[in-house]
Amino acid sequence: MDVTPDRSQTRLDHYVDRYAARTAGMTASEIRALFAVASRPEVVSLAGGMPNISGLPLDVVGGAISDLVAHHGAVAMQYGSGQGVPELREQITDVMRLEGIEAHPDDVVVTVGSQQAVDLVTRIFIDPGDVVLCEAPSYVGALGVFKAYQADVVHVEMDAEGLVPAALRQAIASVKASGRRIKFLYTIPNFHNPAGVTLAAHRRAEILDICTSEGVLILEDNPYGLLGFDRDPLRALRADEADGVIYLGSFSKTFAPGFRVGWALAPHPVREKLVLAQESATLCPPQFSQMAVSAYLANHDWQGQIKQFREMYRERRDAMIGALDDLMPDGCEWNVPDGGFYVWLTLPPGIDAKAMLPRAVTARVAYVPGTAFFADGFGSRAMRLSFCYPTPERIREGVRRLAGVLEAEIELRATFGAAAPDRPLQAYQGYDGPGSDLS
Amino acid sequence: MDVTPDRSQTRLDHYVDRYAARTAGMTASEIRALFAVASRPEVVSLAGGMPNISGLPLDVVGGAISDLVAHHGAVAMQYGSGQGVPELREQITDVMRLEGIEAHPDDVVVTVGSQQAVDLVTRIFIDPGDVVLCEAPSYVGALGVFKAYQADVVHVEMDAEGLVPAALRQAIASVKASGRRIKFLYTIPNFHNPAGVTLAAHRRAEILDICTSEGVLILEDNPYGLLGFDRDPLRALRADEADGVIYLGSFSKTFAPGFRVGWALAPHPVREKLVLAQESATLCPPQFSQMAVSAYLANHDWQGQIKQFREMYRERRDAMIGALDDLMPDGCEWNVPDGGFYVWLTLPPGIDAKAMLPRAVTARVAYVPGTAFFADGFGSRAMRLSFCYPTPERIREGVRRLAGVLEAEIELRATFGAAAPDRPLQAYQGYDGPGSDLS
Repeated sequence: MDVTPDRSQTRLDHYVDRYAARTAGMTASEIRALFAVASRPEVVSLAGGMPNISGLPLDVVGGAISDLVAHHGAVAMQYGSGQGVPELREQITDVMRLEGIEAHPDDVVVTVGSQQAVDLVTRIFIDPGDVVLCEAPSYVGALGVFKAYQADVVHVEMDAEGLVPAALRQAIASVKASGRRIKFLYTIPNFHNPAGVTLAAHRRAEILDICTSEGVLILEDNPYGLLGFDRDPLRALRADEADGVIYLGSFSKTFAPGFRVGWALAPHPVREKLVLAQESATLCPPQFSQMAVSAYLANHDWQGQIKQFREMYRERRDAMIGALDDLMPDGCEWNVPDGGFYVWLTLPPGIDAKAMLPRAVTARVAYVPGTAFFADGFGSRAMRLSFCYPTPERIREGVRRLAGVLEAEIELRATFGAAAPDRPLQAYQGYDGPGSDLS
Repeated sequence: MDVTPDRSQTRLDHYVDRYAARTAGMTASEIRALFAVASRPEVVSLAGGMPNISGLPLDVVGGAISDLVAHHGAVAMQYGSGQGVPELREQITDVMRLEGIEAHPDDVVVTVGSQQAVDLVTRIFIDPGDVVLCEAPSYVGALGVFKAYQADVVHVEMDAEGLVPAALRQAIASVKASGRRIKFLYTIPNFHNPAGVTLAAHRRAEILDICTSEGVLILEDNPYGLLGFDRDPLRALRADEADGVIYLGSFSKTFAPGFRVGWALAPHPVREKLVLAQESATLCPPQFSQMAVSAYLANHDWQGQIKQFREMYRERRDAMIGALDDLMPDGCEWNVPDGGFYVWLTLPPGIDAKAMLPRAVTARVAYVPGTAFFADGFGSRAMRLSFCYPTPERIREGVRRLAGVLEAEIELRATFGAAAPDRPLQAYQGYDGPGSDLS
């Protein structure tokens, strides 16, 4: 038997008739296809969402982990509980207190990054055809999960102050009128990925009121909440509504993603289901990772470290906004995020960010086209630019290259017109993402 | 708003109407309910499947991980690829070569323990109502996954030489005649959990022939294959059939479970789906864990370590078999496993292992009732005893306590008869697990 697979031959997938129906919804994201390209050193990647962890004190982390192995190795390397390490769950409640959340460690479930929390929540709530409400645009990784569980995503408009309450009411009414079931609203209230906007404090009570009165559970995904540039964190939605909100947090952006430690804080009965789902999915999240994160939190000024991260990201945000101001051609619009990793850029009418991407990569700059963040093909005139990973100098160089590509695109268009009929401008309910009114 | 949940009140689950249909299949396993009890120090637990990792060289592990943080910390703590760390996948092919598998690292997907591999394979193949063929009995954690994805489990008889080929043919014919779709055969060929038996070498080709000619994919789960007591590993099923077998491996029993590093080796198109499923489930498996395992493999005589584990587990197996021989009342039967962690014990007619468990725990010994390992309620006259974790002295003490409970049970039954009519003996196709003909 030939054990060296013939790559060309195996491209023919004779399993194709055997996969589950859900597997058709698992497709490579536009971000994933970019990873290979963007990792070439000559390309300035404004595409990825990798945090810059070069500021972490490796000696402190290394020391804490050495001590962990030496003194608790037999526990750290053993199986643990499906819910997660109790001491870490206690520390997680301390972290959440910074956003006004008073929670009991019993209601926390540790997950393999908050991505797995999205997966487990979706697993326990979504039957095929159920509706998930999402901001427009929304996080590509969550949209991928919803698609894999055969949910119908209904996008809800955002503006410069985040999710628009009136649009939310309208979306709920419209879905209910269609006879479909809304299972939850998925929202990233702080420093939104990809839109960069934050749900205004005065809107939070209104969003909670709408969801409570309509019986819509909220899935509050908050990986960036502690990474504000100019102020203390806003109160989480969960801080004011314990029963109708599942809150997701992560150490990926405030410490490091390589441990894959995130969590869900859920109402008690939901928490029980999540633990069962976690046991089925992995038996237990990695004990070693959890205890490493716990040791870091116990032995290091982690809040001071977050402060350093905030300053570093603010400098990069400034570099990106400064470069956009200086270099972008007329007709581009963008927002100025006050935290997190991302700027949402809207292009002049007639320019398609996805179609332009190969030319951008040829010019050695990468971004994520806006369509990645919509379940329904909208967002073609927008792109996400991330300022988290490259240095300020590289960010400026990346924006310079991007501006060059855009200018050529605009000029080409002015000379020859569009190759294909323009998509309806602002096609998404008069709307192509929240950036356009924020420049 | 009251943020301190009232535990009694929240037991009323008002989310009950909102869960997905699959969530009804997520229930606490009998093993899980036991964990709390069995962890009390006065109880001898013959229930758990925790490996005994006290022999691991903590200085070597600590040193390797310190070096990892110092020299590669920025990579180890960062996001990685959904498929897993390339160097580790290369090392995994070295591990699999010990069982005759020649594989390419491109076809390996790293998972969060092999439990997650079972989950991801099931996710991409199983629609509700699809059939999974499983040995009788089968691994409780895999049965839980199949149930959570709403598969129909059809058990296939085993004997002292493992899965019975004629029974497999019959099961396939019977499922096909019923019009249902078989998606795969889930099998643990070596040192079976819970049955302790190994698929005989001469049967492997026959099982492969049947599955190939009937178009049944094989999911070969092999966490214990390198832990034989008396001989080198048998050739894996995957070693002789690259296209029709998905092979699952794990470092949990040959190194340590706390890193949660397992893997799937899959035909190329299936591998692509598994990577997409992994990205959706976790973005990527923990980079730090993977690099820690990789550093351990690179810096330590891991095969020598496995040899030590084999000797230690053999001593414990001998302690358990010796104690069973010396102490068990007449009418009990068990097998003598030549590797792995488990003995399958069949009780005298009329004794129900699950009903007896509370009395056993009162006598400070725990086991897992046989019913946990069947999807259909069989196995009531059997139990799994594990010899992996307690010391030989504790194993003997545990068996002594168990024998006392059993003797009282037998005596009670002789005096008063059964409280309820006996279940049909050997009800499962004339069969209650493979232990009964192996004592």
